[in-house]
Amino acid sequence: MKSFDIVIVGGGPAGVSTAISAHNTYRSKSIAVIRKESVALIPCGIPYTQYSLSEVSDDILPDLLVTEKAGAELIIGELVDKTDNILTLADGQKIQYQKLVLAMGAMPCMPSLHGTEKQGVFIIKKDIKYLEKMKHYRDNASKIVIIGGGYIGVELAEEYTKANKEVTLIELEHQLLPNAMDEAFGAKMASLLEGIGVSLIFGHAVTSIEGGKMVQAVQLDDGRRIETDMVVICIGCRPDITLAEKFGLSCDPRYGIHVDEYLRSSEDDIFVVGDITAKRDFFTGKPTDIRLASTAMAEGRLVGSNLFEVKVIRKYLGVMGSFSTKICGVSFGVSGLTEARAKEIKINYRVGEATTVDRHPGCFKDASQTHLKLIFSRYSHVLLGAELYGGDSVGEMVNMLSVMILNKMTDMDIDTLQIGTHPLLTASPIAYPIITATVEAIGKWYREDAA
Amino acid sequence: MKSFDIVIVGGGPAGVSTAISAHNTYRSKSIAVIRKESVALIPCGIPYTQYSLSEVSDDILPDLLVTEKAGAELIIGELVDKTDNILTLADGQKIQYQKLVLAMGAMPCMPSLHGTEKQGVFIIKKDIKYLEKMKHYRDNASKIVIIGGGYIGVELAEEYTKANKEVTLIELEHQLLPNAMDEAFGAKMASLLEGIGVSLIFGHAVTSIEGGKMVQAVQLDDGRRIETDMVVICIGCRPDITLAEKFGLSCDPRYGIHVDEYLRSSEDDIFVVGDITAKRDFFTGKPTDIRLASTAMAEGRLVGSNLFEVKVIRKYLGVMGSFSTKICGVSFGVSGLTEARAKEIKINYRVGEATTVDRHPGCFKDASQTHLKLIFSRYSHVLLGAELYGGDSVGEMVNMLSVMILNKMTDMDIDTLQIGTHPLLTASPIAYPIITATVEAIGKWYREDAA
Repeated sequence: MKSFDIVIVGGGPAGVSTAISAHNTYRSKSIAVIRKESVALIPCGIPYTQYSLSEVSDDILPDLLVTEKAGAELIIGELVDKTDNILTLADGQKIQYQKLVLAMGAMPCMPSLHGTEKQGVFIIKKDIKYLEKMKHYRDNASKIVIIGGGYIGVELAEEYTKANKEVTLIELEHQLLPNAMDEAFGAKMASLLEGIGVSLIFGHAVTSIEGGKMVQAVQLDDGRRIETDMVVICIGCRPDITLAEKFGLSCDPRYGIHVDEYLRSSEDDIFVVGDITAKRDFFTGKPTDIRLASTAMAEGRLVGSNLFEVKVIRKYLGVMGSFSTKICGVSFGVSGLTEARAKEIKINYRVGEATTVDRHPGCFKDASQTHLKLIFSRYSHVLLGAELYGGDSVGEMVNMLSVMILNKMTDMDIDTLQIGTHPLLTASPIAYPIITATVEAIGKWYREDAA
Repeated sequence: MKSFDIVIVGGGPAGVSTAISAHNTYRSKSIAVIRKESVALIPCGIPYTQYSLSEVSDDILPDLLVTEKAGAELIIGELVDKTDNILTLADGQKIQYQKLVLAMGAMPCMPSLHGTEKQGVFIIKKDIKYLEKMKHYRDNASKIVIIGGGYIGVELAEEYTKANKEVTLIELEHQLLPNAMDEAFGAKMASLLEGIGVSLIFGHAVTSIEGGKMVQAVQLDDGRRIETDMVVICIGCRPDITLAEKFGLSCDPRYGIHVDEYLRSSEDDIFVVGDITAKRDFFTGKPTDIRLASTAMAEGRLVGSNLFEVKVIRKYLGVMGSFSTKICGVSFGVSGLTEARAKEIKINYRVGEATTVDRHPGCFKDASQTHLKLIFSRYSHVLLGAELYGGDSVGEMVNMLSVMILNKMTDMDIDTLQIGTHPLLTASPIAYPIITATVEAIGKWYREDAA
């Protein structure tokens, strides 16, 4: 029987980062990563396997990260049972562990609709063969319906349009990315997608998928029928806790396996990281559905360091949610609370906004307009959220905003901030958007106080 | 006699940001900005007026910022004297103030060399006519010598090379940007400039500028003589405190006018912002020569809010120094301490480094390699400095690093950070450079402790 000091189940970002961190921390410990899939994929690259990347295999998360960077043994197999500290894989193999890390991820949700079994109906699986099949299928499709207007839905809508398909995207809520962005930002993204020819349908549900053996149409709740050759369902994902329950771990059926601050499960020596972990919201401590590769990796790094004793004290508790994407050449970023969510959780807030250009003078040819909205606590003055769109620099600007929110910086801290600016790289120091939007919020308070 | 609640002397970034902030804070107060120059320029855009921008006037800092955004009266004139709270301008005009803000900036240094008066010898003045003359002069020059390898020197070297000039850059120290970057980063920049044909001379001083009425050569301290048609001197700037001394304000002859935490001078009702202010180093509190538009603007925002009482408490004291630039398509950023400076001020430090790609998978066509070096306090574990080069996202990544340094974040705080990543915008979450370099530093400590 094989025996390892550390066994990690799952080879996605959470599992890989745990392995690397464990190897970095405990050089003499033996590590194994057990992975169900023959190859692992970079999750956020998946939409781009459908057009922008030449091959689906361009999106592979290299095994070398496990075998070389983490010095671990990679075992391809599926965990099916466990007795004490001995795991059983589907092929009967037994593996003994001292510390176990569960990093099995989440499964894409499949709606309970008539017709989802038809040929031409796909969900987003982290499976290279499936994604290759899906890519080949679209070659012969001329019309594609996407169900779900979250990040994957909008990214796929652009990919398929670039591949000259006639795309219809159906979203139950009244805007794109309803859980991630305020209305005006969703509307900006919608106008970009409509600009390249995507048909958007808001506020309606699909009631059935129709056709013979192959999909031919989707039926909407208002009686409309939309002809299509292919349907892609991307309405989110849920952790699969079947195995964890079998192991007797404390779980929440919707949110995942319960863990403490250090991702320790209800059983000693079992840690849980990534999408299968029940997560808490940064602002309220309530359970949250936000599942991100970047959060999973932060958890993996933490667990890898802390397997035998807590070395790394965690400062940032709860999932804050920091996202970015790029649609039709415009980059979008969101971090922390949106205005809608601030209202929902009853936070007394004020908004500061700024529109500027990301080069200076603005006549430089690669300059893009940036629009930024910040949410501050009205009385604590702490920065709680940020949404922006603009050029590629949005990708790092949203991370800078995350660092500000995580550090509970106030409007006054931001007002006196020292940042670097350069004509070819950033907005002018006089129009730097994060500061300009902050100053706008401060101005509002001054006027409210004077009134 | 004209009378204003607030009078600001100087129309550069410091003066303009003070005016905007004062107007945002005190809507009913009258504001005047007194500016010597007929037009104001964006300081960091000046190198790009010599080739990349079609006209020098593309680099104008618009008067509308003063007259509309700050609701101020713009007075073109030069301050020459002051009695009590009444200013006298060169044209004899008298102006009364309640609060005075001095924002006169710094003057470019002119070395005491024989020959600086010759035609074809230029310094970097914030003067549109002078810069236009300088631009026209280079039309007829085929060889240009730049004295000084700081930011302006390297940016000009690239501009002139693009304009098909034969450029020689002479730097007294043994690397480019000796005060801003560690050797390896200076060497990277040097190899880029040499790659486009710039001749670099390190470790030598110019002893004289030779020629008749017009410049013909520069003489080096090792006897070498370099033929040239034009010389541009950019060896830094110094505040001109003549007027401040005349007004009886406490000054340091090298560093500028003395101020307290809130930029208040030794005289009540007189504030000082920007390059003319004596500044302190963020890490040691000692006087510093770092003068940046972005620091000046932070000071301006602070003073504008605090003219009649301190509203904005300052959290970030001292100049940290956050810079960026772009040379031959590669962006460079520096924030806080370099390794050389950490040694100089006797800080016990450790370095973490990472090299990665700023898109994921790395096969996306616009992916650039990023190299990052972080400096941590060995025992306090606080992040003290960062240097990096890579794609355009360096411009905002360096600001994110500044926010981390200003907040005194530790390696462990960064290790558990939540950041957003996206295939088209950032490095992969598994290779995100700031985290990867931090993890490398942590790994070193673990191994040192184990040894």
